[in-house]
Amino acid sequence: MSQESSAEATERLHALRTSIDNIDAALVFILAERFKITQKVGAFKATAGLPAADPNREERQISRLRNLASDAGLDPDFTEKFLRFIIDEVIRHHYKAGAPSSL
Amino acid sequence: MSQESSAEATERLHALRTSIDNIDAALVFILAERFKITQKVGAFKATAGLPAADPNREERQISRLRNLASDAGLDPDFTEKFLRFIIDEVIRHHYKAGAPSSL
Repeated sequence: MSQESSAEATERLHALRTSIDNIDAALVFILAERFKITQKVGAFKATAGLPAADPNREERQISRLRNLASDAGLDPDFTEKFLRFIIDEVIRHHYKAGAPSSL
Repeated sequence: MSQESSAEATERLHALRTSIDNIDAALVFILAERFKITQKVGAFKATAGLPAADPNREERQISRLRNLASDAGLDPDFTEKFLRFIIDEVIRHHYKAGAPSSL
């Protein structure tokens, strides 16, 4: 940074943040699609009387995503927490849709 | 579902889950790119002596993403929690990279 002026540095930070904002918009829109699909799964589970949570399925998802995260250079532990965060929200939706608790 | 056989129902659930798995892979790869960019922001902040957290920037991000979420049919409150979850991880990385605390 020694050769970089303050204006150049500010410009560089701004450019990075613009990319972050683009990525965040993409995340929001793709998450919206994910919840549309899990809404269908929730309706299916409610009709079929299947429990909202499916620990075996979740275990497979976590294992697969941890591997993908390693390939992508993303922290697998963070990725697992991330998936858990999403799934917890999905399960809340499933309960609302009328799926029985697995307990 | 009354006209649907059990095999058809299982097939339908499988198809939905395949789409969820594709979306999750996309999320992992796009998150990996997001952290690559925030890593550059972290290095910048450490060099420039800027604090790891930037509450004004975060407030603008949350407000923008809540609006995008509404457009996309995604729960704005969940979206805010989601962004906070990501930002908390980013701030942890920034501290590791040597950015000073804003406290």
